[in-house]
Amino acid sequence: MTDTLLESTPLAIDEAAADRIFRTARTTSQWSDAEVSDARLEAAWDLAKLGPTAMNTLPLRWLVVRSPEAKQRLVAHMADGNKPKVEAAPVSLVLAADPAFHEHLDELFPVYPGIREQLAPAAEQRGDMARFNALIQAGYVIVALRAVGLAAGPMNGMDTAGIDAEFFGESGWQSLMVVNVGEAEGEGSPYPRNPRLSFEQVAEVL
Amino acid sequence: MTDTLLESTPLAIDEAAADRIFRTARTTSQWSDAEVSDARLEAAWDLAKLGPTAMNTLPLRWLVVRSPEAKQRLVAHMADGNKPKVEAAPVSLVLAADPAFHEHLDELFPVYPGIREQLAPAAEQRGDMARFNALIQAGYVIVALRAVGLAAGPMNGMDTAGIDAEFFGESGWQSLMVVNVGEAEGEGSPYPRNPRLSFEQVAEVL
Repeated sequence: MTDTLLESTPLAIDEAAADRIFRTARTTSQWSDAEVSDARLEAAWDLAKLGPTAMNTLPLRWLVVRSPEAKQRLVAHMADGNKPKVEAAPVSLVLAADPAFHEHLDELFPVYPGIREQLAPAAEQRGDMARFNALIQAGYVIVALRAVGLAAGPMNGMDTAGIDAEFFGESGWQSLMVVNVGEAEGEGSPYPRNPRLSFEQVAEVL
Repeated sequence: MTDTLLESTPLAIDEAAADRIFRTARTTSQWSDAEVSDARLEAAWDLAKLGPTAMNTLPLRWLVVRSPEAKQRLVAHMADGNKPKVEAAPVSLVLAADPAFHEHLDELFPVYPGIREQLAPAAEQRGDMARFNALIQAGYVIVALRAVGLAAGPMNGMDTAGIDAEFFGESGWQSLMVVNVGEAEGEGSPYPRNPRLSFEQVAEVL
């Protein structure tokens, strides 16, 4: 089966690219001294933004936490085990969903005139749509960061309500996760990779 | 700014790979005659499964809908505008979240003994965790399908409760989206790409 698979299903990208975005990439907690410029983050966004979202809603937002002052404001809302990880990372991103995504839809989804006005009063629906699509985009962002040579350390252990109150009182963004970003030192992790589920374990074929 | 960006932020993958996974990839509705074997879907999974999830929970599941009979069962629960899209695609995947992901955690997350038992009674928390992480994985899957030379046409217009009752009565999987899969004919879409939000529009830097 494995030999047949290798013969019949070559990658459509080169091996080094597949290694970088998936096969050798690791959730990273060990960082080089390299700084992470906004330009590199923008380069990652310029890939990730192209991934599809429902009605091209693009609800994902980034809070880029780089300054020592901002880092400490974020650290205060992280779970204890994640506080040193935020402190050690060159940059930490708070990935968030924007329930006010509809304000851009005249530009983003011109095929459906009036959708902006239709969604305006539907705050709960917009919140659900924002979260749903922003999480898919978080997957694209993690891949895209790797594609521009960065490593990602995503984390959930945090007080999301505290982060939202600290940073998003005006914007109404809703935090989803924190992703530490930088260049990995070595493999980026001291731990062996955990096992994964096989295709047979996750897929049913009809 | 653009010139500086290009000089200072080269990709870490080759240009053709960046084109294939993001820059020229399109949400596809126009398909070649090529069939999509399980081996090719498995090759995509073998990349996508490596993307990180919280506590390595890996809650995403695939229902692979290929036979004409299964296609018609799925079509019955799609929004009218999406029925012909499912019928036209070589394969349609129902991507779903498995709230029973915890049953695999002894294997998947051995660093936390007892987490399986701890989560067993927490059905609502497991449902939230499954949905959150499976959506991130959906992002990985769309990229990975492209990386093995396939094209993806993700869709939300469907009766998720109807699909869950039709297919997931025993497993308890919860459908998230349907992704049509095949090889694209030409660009795969008759429409120009919609605009995207810029980095300045989505990011705040502290």
